[in-house]
Amino acid sequence: MDVIETVRWSHDGAGVRILDQRELPLHEVYRDLRSVEEIYDAILTLAVRGAPAIGIAGAMGVALSASGVDGNDRMQCVSAAAARIRSARPTAVNLGWAVDRVLAAASGPDISASMIAEATQILEEDRAMCQAIGRHGATLIPDGARVLTHCNAGALATGGIGTALAGIYVAAGSGKRVHVFADETRPLLQGSRLTAWELQRAGIPVTVLVDGAAASLMARDQVDLCIVGADRIAANGDVANKIGTYPLAIAAKRHGIPFYVAAPSSTFDPSTAAGAEIVIEQRSGDEVRRASGGATAPAAVDVYNPAFDVTPSELITAIVSDRGVHRPPYDFTFTASDA
Amino acid sequence: MDVIETVRWSHDGAGVRILDQRELPLHEVYRDLRSVEEIYDAILTLAVRGAPAIGIAGAMGVALSASGVDGNDRMQCVSAAAARIRSARPTAVNLGWAVDRVLAAASGPDISASMIAEATQILEEDRAMCQAIGRHGATLIPDGARVLTHCNAGALATGGIGTALAGIYVAAGSGKRVHVFADETRPLLQGSRLTAWELQRAGIPVTVLVDGAAASLMARDQVDLCIVGADRIAANGDVANKIGTYPLAIAAKRHGIPFYVAAPSSTFDPSTAAGAEIVIEQRSGDEVRRASGGATAPAAVDVYNPAFDVTPSELITAIVSDRGVHRPPYDFTFTASDA
Repeated sequence: MDVIETVRWSHDGAGVRILDQRELPLHEVYRDLRSVEEIYDAILTLAVRGAPAIGIAGAMGVALSASGVDGNDRMQCVSAAAARIRSARPTAVNLGWAVDRVLAAASGPDISASMIAEATQILEEDRAMCQAIGRHGATLIPDGARVLTHCNAGALATGGIGTALAGIYVAAGSGKRVHVFADETRPLLQGSRLTAWELQRAGIPVTVLVDGAAASLMARDQVDLCIVGADRIAANGDVANKIGTYPLAIAAKRHGIPFYVAAPSSTFDPSTAAGAEIVIEQRSGDEVRRASGGATAPAAVDVYNPAFDVTPSELITAIVSDRGVHRPPYDFTFTASDA
Repeated sequence: MDVIETVRWSHDGAGVRILDQRELPLHEVYRDLRSVEEIYDAILTLAVRGAPAIGIAGAMGVALSASGVDGNDRMQCVSAAAARIRSARPTAVNLGWAVDRVLAAASGPDISASMIAEATQILEEDRAMCQAIGRHGATLIPDGARVLTHCNAGALATGGIGTALAGIYVAAGSGKRVHVFADETRPLLQGSRLTAWELQRAGIPVTVLVDGAAASLMARDQVDLCIVGADRIAANGDVANKIGTYPLAIAAKRHGIPFYVAAPSSTFDPSTAAGAEIVIEQRSGDEVRRASGGATAPAAVDVYNPAFDVTPSELITAIVSDRGVHRPPYDFTFTASDA
């Protein structure tokens, strides 16, 4: 199973090698980012995206910022790098968390080596977390399964084999036949641009469909299960995820199709009692008014463009994390220490 | 209420004036089509679209084909025009029906005048049909209503004020405040390109959203009713309509929101017992692989791209036709003579 590596150290260890996602699905281009500005720019322009992948790239960038800088200037330089990289996606909680971890490791006789070791540790932990989700997720995927997914919660969003797609990769790697249906996921088309691309590259059969076609596919008895990622999971099991997840879950319920959510345990938020408390980010209407650079709506038309929707717990069959497969009623107290 | 006129005679009566929908939503361009080839091309390239509008344009084109042709050549010329225009959209039932009506009128002392009168009659009947649907539809739309619609079943698809949008136009024209939410309707974006444009032009407040966002809008209690068009209605009330209609109806049911279908009585097909009998056209995958001319998926990826889905009768609150508001259990025997 040849799963794409989205972010890792460059061959000489002096840079961050990323797969440039701005070029997908047309070109597979890798870039070695060798300065804080290059890393800042890659995060800002979504060359690297997905909470875990952004965190890893940011951590690596901070770790590298001390290289070649001597004496007292070093910590000033590292602090400036951390602030700059953090500012590329100020609302990305995982980016701030990863940058802070590397900063906290900046001690000892060789600050640079300590920070590089910490960034490497973040990458390794993410890879292991993806593998664990994949192992648990694969138990839910029978041989011959036709799996519907939404957006991209795959290798392209993490340092490892993804979250929602991890179970699919592990299942396929163990010899199960899996066919994936990937919703294109308007407005930003992460499903058709990214999920379809990474699955195709890994040799897993994939079919793309517009978001509105998923229910008809279920009605034709072509879907055995759904599996999606999560941006935040409330204490009662309500899940905030990419816009378009909720209608999928409603349709799956109607058709008696299992609906699974896969996410790292860090996504569980015990301090949020229920989905109704989650504030949904409204994004620019231009994402909807345009597609592939062309106008798709009147220029000044009003747009409703929420980034996420909330799927109530009652529509979710089970939640897969690196800790196992969780079924309602949920007990997420194990995550309290991570919160 | 200034509702757009999609197709009508040109000012001098010697051509067919259409609003060129290829230019929408950026430019409002009218073209006077003065030859069979121009009309053929306009239908083929979707400059004019929507079953009723295509039928009207085709009928007018055949009617004009006898002008300036003398004697025995005339009927040959008319027959050739009819065949050519019909071939522009060979599966469009309404186009063949309208062309046949004009051909059947090609008799009497002035064949040209008879055919022009018949084409005019088709246009007038369509306008009246839209008005009748609008009168009945408006009774379902209360003052202040927030109405969700899908695709374009508006003035841009007919010779009059549309079908699904007709009730909205009549309600707004009578002083009711109506706000419309228009699903963009991937893959061809008729909602954001066309519905949003024609409503905005008519002065009706409209908000565009991606198809996957409609359910979250319902969950926020922002939708009072849904109204969509239909491509075919089976005897049991199952409705085939643009892909993405079915998941809307499922979500509306969950949220207790009325779901209405509006269509001319010619759309009712008593010879089809239920939706399961309706063969769904699969369209080119390139519609999904591309948007606004740019690649949105890997070039060779498999695509599931059905033109329509089937919404079962149990999810539909009522069906609005030019004959009235029909509620289950349906008795569509009145349509038998039109079938």
